[in-house]
Amino acid sequence: MADWPGLSIGVPRLSNTAYEAACTHYRRIDRLQHLQAIAGWDQMANMPPNGNEARSHALAEVEGLVHEMGTAPALGALLQRAAAEPLDEAQRASLREMQRAWRNATAVPQELVEAASLAASRCEHAWRSQRPANDWQGFSANLVEVVRLQREQARALSAGTELSPYEALLDRFEPGMRCAQIDRYFGDIRGWLPQLIRDALRRQESRPAVEPVGPFPKAAQRALGLEAMRMVGFDFEGGRLDESAHPFCGGVPQDVRMTTRYSEDNFLPALMGVIHETGHGRYEQNLPRELLGLPVAQARSMGLHESQSLSFEMQLARNPGFVQQLRPLLLKHLGEQAAFEPENLVRLLTRVRRGYIRVDADEVTYPAHVILRYEIERPLINGEIEVSDIPGLWDQGMQELLGLDTRGNFRNGCMQDVHWGSGGFGYFPCYTLGAMYAAQWFAAMRRDLPDLDGQIARGELEPIFGWLRERIWTQGSRWETDELARRASGETLNPAHFRRHLEARYLG
Amino acid sequence: MADWPGLSIGVPRLSNTAYEAACTHYRRIDRLQHLQAIAGWDQMANMPPNGNEARSHALAEVEGLVHEMGTAPALGALLQRAAAEPLDEAQRASLREMQRAWRNATAVPQELVEAASLAASRCEHAWRSQRPANDWQGFSANLVEVVRLQREQARALSAGTELSPYEALLDRFEPGMRCAQIDRYFGDIRGWLPQLIRDALRRQESRPAVEPVGPFPKAAQRALGLEAMRMVGFDFEGGRLDESAHPFCGGVPQDVRMTTRYSEDNFLPALMGVIHETGHGRYEQNLPRELLGLPVAQARSMGLHESQSLSFEMQLARNPGFVQQLRPLLLKHLGEQAAFEPENLVRLLTRVRRGYIRVDADEVTYPAHVILRYEIERPLINGEIEVSDIPGLWDQGMQELLGLDTRGNFRNGCMQDVHWGSGGFGYFPCYTLGAMYAAQWFAAMRRDLPDLDGQIARGELEPIFGWLRERIWTQGSRWETDELARRASGETLNPAHFRRHLEARYLG
Repeated sequence: MADWPGLSIGVPRLSNTAYEAACTHYRRIDRLQHLQAIAGWDQMANMPPNGNEARSHALAEVEGLVHEMGTAPALGALLQRAAAEPLDEAQRASLREMQRAWRNATAVPQELVEAASLAASRCEHAWRSQRPANDWQGFSANLVEVVRLQREQARALSAGTELSPYEALLDRFEPGMRCAQIDRYFGDIRGWLPQLIRDALRRQESRPAVEPVGPFPKAAQRALGLEAMRMVGFDFEGGRLDESAHPFCGGVPQDVRMTTRYSEDNFLPALMGVIHETGHGRYEQNLPRELLGLPVAQARSMGLHESQSLSFEMQLARNPGFVQQLRPLLLKHLGEQAAFEPENLVRLLTRVRRGYIRVDADEVTYPAHVILRYEIERPLINGEIEVSDIPGLWDQGMQELLGLDTRGNFRNGCMQDVHWGSGGFGYFPCYTLGAMYAAQWFAAMRRDLPDLDGQIARGELEPIFGWLRERIWTQGSRWETDELARRASGETLNPAHFRRHLEARYLG
Repeated sequence: MADWPGLSIGVPRLSNTAYEAACTHYRRIDRLQHLQAIAGWDQMANMPPNGNEARSHALAEVEGLVHEMGTAPALGALLQRAAAEPLDEAQRASLREMQRAWRNATAVPQELVEAASLAASRCEHAWRSQRPANDWQGFSANLVEVVRLQREQARALSAGTELSPYEALLDRFEPGMRCAQIDRYFGDIRGWLPQLIRDALRRQESRPAVEPVGPFPKAAQRALGLEAMRMVGFDFEGGRLDESAHPFCGGVPQDVRMTTRYSEDNFLPALMGVIHETGHGRYEQNLPRELLGLPVAQARSMGLHESQSLSFEMQLARNPGFVQQLRPLLLKHLGEQAAFEPENLVRLLTRVRRGYIRVDADEVTYPAHVILRYEIERPLINGEIEVSDIPGLWDQGMQELLGLDTRGNFRNGCMQDVHWGSGGFGYFPCYTLGAMYAAQWFAAMRRDLPDLDGQIARGELEPIFGWLRERIWTQGSRWETDELARRASGETLNPAHFRRHLEARYLG
């Protein structure tokens, strides 16, 4: 039997304090994550099929190193010693985020992380063919194992805290958010949304929209998207736009890699998708530069991240004044069409449709999709229901929330999303929290910038970006979310803004 | 003072033998190098300018890890124990290559590696502006330090061996090659090349070529290049073609990343460049699959690598039968032109010109550029001449070899290459060794495949690729270079083939 050549990754003892040594350590981790991010982006945007196996091994190798470094006992000791050092307020915040990263990395035994990851990637892989085959039986058999291991992880993460198991999963994506709050927000939305949808549908009946007529060549759409990205301030010296099957915003804050996909039938999904991802991208590009590499420099939460993409895509890009600004770009890249008349474009962009598919939903029906998932995944992780209960609850919820019959339609029902099969429980609420925060930011902005709509109509967007940059982007994770929201908008998350936004836009 | 959180990258003791444990270790190193390769390619092909600083740090971090892993004392102990284990012939060869990797990684103290790397990147960075400014004074001041540190490295590498310092640097690129051999080969070439150049120039005077008339749009050149790559067998399921300022073949064997650059004035440089890089690419794509990740699976040497790119670019792609095959591709992508007549294309592709610049040189004058550099860098590293002697020797050599006056023209003289400033001493000979090997492979192929030219003219290229695949590509580093050459062609490197090739093509 041969011994493994164990390595001690030693580094000169340059640091003066435990806090500084911990910073140096996290910056090293961040450098490895930089390569993960770029190689991961490449895997989606560039990699030929036969590169996948070697790439997966390479990414798993560095994933293991990152885990090793993030859970090193000596790091734990450093963080303990740092807590006793005299730190200023900013350093305290930075240490708080390191402690959070440490807890999340160490709370779950590595064997469990690996077992959960394996089960999830098996389930997700099979789901790719099970979904088109509408094979709930096959999918649920794998999902049972995924859920079992997610429950175990949730228990491990919640041990010694006051969190419920589901809250412990949610907390990784939305630190500080609790189910009591979400229940209140989503309960409120559930109260008025079905009627709002009915009213909005009735109102739009009297305002039919002219459909755009394709095909819209990919090259023209790409040129249009790039120009729209410039219009909303993306820094091309620190990022780029490519294509991938599933659009995302990846890379690193210094080099943001956005992707989109094009359908030649309709240019609006790619255009709005690009504007959406630019919201994510600008948040990343404007995180606090001097702190990059430290946990405190990261975006505050997934809900906050989504609040930026939705600020761009929903609050800004569907503003009639902005749509007017888009018109010359459309003429330049796609030519003239009746559908490009600004008022018609606004109708197209604010069209409400009850549909089965979350990712295709408009901003009015979207929360219904999220609430449905939250109401299923929370009791599922907490052990109050089982995988076999999902279809029935799904059918019932879709009937109540959207009046749609999904019985037997697993493909476009509870099997439509990649999240559950790949173990992403606790993520769904962030989408609607993001929409609510975005509405809140724009409500506060209207107070701080009284001529907001006029500025948008004149293409003067810098005040908006300056507002977001100063209050959100450059703050990273310096403040807990409630404090960030208070400093930015004067109050913690208040769902009234989201309702007012929808009522003004869809019933006004 | 805070301790550094040292990490022990432990791995279960799964291996039965020291040899297997060493294999596992090298495969881990290879996975990190995979990410280095992809992130390095991305840096050249995709990265926006502001991504560079973070990328450089990330690459340096993983470089440090790779160095740590490649020099781990426990690895040295494993290799020692493996040498006493009962290994078969293939495992012996694999161990030999691990030992070589170990020696190269450990012979030079890490501080010296870092100092040399720092001096080189400073010198190279300054060179980018000093070269256009013809600033020999500024450049040579930096180069003195680079040379000093390269001499130190060469001494460390040669300590305890029979190698001269220069040979120790050369050996990293061309294992087993010695100066006595190169002196013999290059001395031979020096004897007949100047006259051959004169004769070739005289002969082509009577056969003027029609110039192609541009512009040739980039998109058309790219489509042409992709089709030419398919024609010469590039596997697009395991690689791709992109653009970069300096063409190269990077990535990993499972996912080869070739780049090229386009000039709209002339399509031939990009087309021939793509065919050249495809030679490198196919070597990588056909290295022994089951051994990938181990040193023995790597390409044998830089000279051997160049022998593949030159087999494609010079031996194959300039064969009149191949040029005939290219013609329909040119018509399809670039339209009809008098210059595309096959006989004229052959003239364009075999035109000899005495020029200052190595990278623009044809295959006849190219060796003169290499010999000149070898005759300077060898005594420079061995301490027989100094940096200040370079310009004089350069002027003298260019006069003798190519009859060109380079006095005072540093920019297009001894400052033209990136190699010396960035510390790449010992690399230049590989270019001409590659050209000699390529001629030898095709001479042996003609013996083994008697209808070679007929097959090429009919587009039946698989016999050629099969010959290279079986004898060279899939052999990786299993054999020392002389043995590889003997098995492939029946003899070790024999410069007579290169001379015969040039005489047949340029004087025949």
